[in-house]
Amino acid sequence: MPQGQPVAVPDDGLTTRQRRNRPLLIVHTGEMKGKSTAAFGLALRGWNQGWSIAVFQFVKSAKWTVGEENALTTLGRVHEETGQGGPVSWYKMGAGWSWSRTQGTEADHAAQAAEGWAEIKRRIAADEHDLYVLDEFTYPMKWGWVDVDDVVATLRDRPGRQHVVITGRDADPRLVDAADLVTEMTKIKHPMDTGQKGQRGIEW
Amino acid sequence: MPQGQPVAVPDDGLTTRQRRNRPLLIVHTGEMKGKSTAAFGLALRGWNQGWSIAVFQFVKSAKWTVGEENALTTLGRVHEETGQGGPVSWYKMGAGWSWSRTQGTEADHAAQAAEGWAEIKRRIAADEHDLYVLDEFTYPMKWGWVDVDDVVATLRDRPGRQHVVITGRDADPRLVDAADLVTEMTKIKHPMDTGQKGQRGIEW
Repeated sequence: MPQGQPVAVPDDGLTTRQRRNRPLLIVHTGEMKGKSTAAFGLALRGWNQGWSIAVFQFVKSAKWTVGEENALTTLGRVHEETGQGGPVSWYKMGAGWSWSRTQGTEADHAAQAAEGWAEIKRRIAADEHDLYVLDEFTYPMKWGWVDVDDVVATLRDRPGRQHVVITGRDADPRLVDAADLVTEMTKIKHPMDTGQKGQRGIEW
Repeated sequence: MPQGQPVAVPDDGLTTRQRRNRPLLIVHTGEMKGKSTAAFGLALRGWNQGWSIAVFQFVKSAKWTVGEENALTTLGRVHEETGQGGPVSWYKMGAGWSWSRTQGTEADHAAQAAEGWAEIKRRIAADEHDLYVLDEFTYPMKWGWVDVDDVVATLRDRPGRQHVVITGRDADPRLVDAADLVTEMTKIKHPMDTGQKGQRGIEW
């Protein structure tokens, strides 16, 4: 809700306008559904503001296409055709990123994750997008496929007004510390607890 | 993630297929951002499946336009023009629902909320949509503007395969009890704690 008021006046030497426009590092963590879904919902808002959106999905299988990908890339095409909203780029790690000439095997996850992060780092340095969704990026951090200190330093020192959303369970404490906004999705009740399997349109 | 496995085999007399296709009542509650955003992200998935999506926003001011509204109604227009995805209907309570001839005043919130629920109830009985997003609907329930037992009974006995997502803080225990999936968005850290105000593209 936009009418939220800050509970403290900060002592950071910034004007309200500077502070308002400060880019955010957002983390969606916790065991429950909704981490990625809320990130893609945020991308909807950004699209409407005309932002350049880039999604990087650190998922293992490129076969898995989420509904959000079709919907958001459709909005990207609307932007190309009519100028409404902003451009949308969507990349999946799968068995090799789409920009990479080496279509690696499923065994190369660690190298592919590192390659994905290198590309993101390059784009952040070039101030290329307004909103980055790094989906399931906590896992390559957890598994040591990317260096957490490098990620945190890169994000902390990023130029311009680039917003970054990172999703996944078990967010590293250093990432949580660096983040401006951290939400934990907590399970109160889930249909799989009572034996229901995932279904089309809800889970993917 | 679609590969999730149920942790128990239910004793409900349904086949796996029947159980898989059982419509869900989903609640996003808790103090933190992401409740509505995740619901709209879910609508993206439903759109991609060709579902008929209906959003009812129980917000007080019609002046407040969220980015998700523009983005999702744009996808609804893509559906009308190309057949891709599904149709999207979006209604805001504001100072009177758009289907209503009586453009009430801001003082009529209770009556307007009841009118909104009556319309939703009518559509549910007619099996009109595949996914209903009842945004901020916990508040009219909390404030007694709609009857919680009526809401729960209507949703529990709804025909067909209609999915319903309800968002807002302080979800009534009867609603939580009736729901299949309940997520609480919990605050770990929020920029307003350190004095930052909401900003365009992030908060709205």
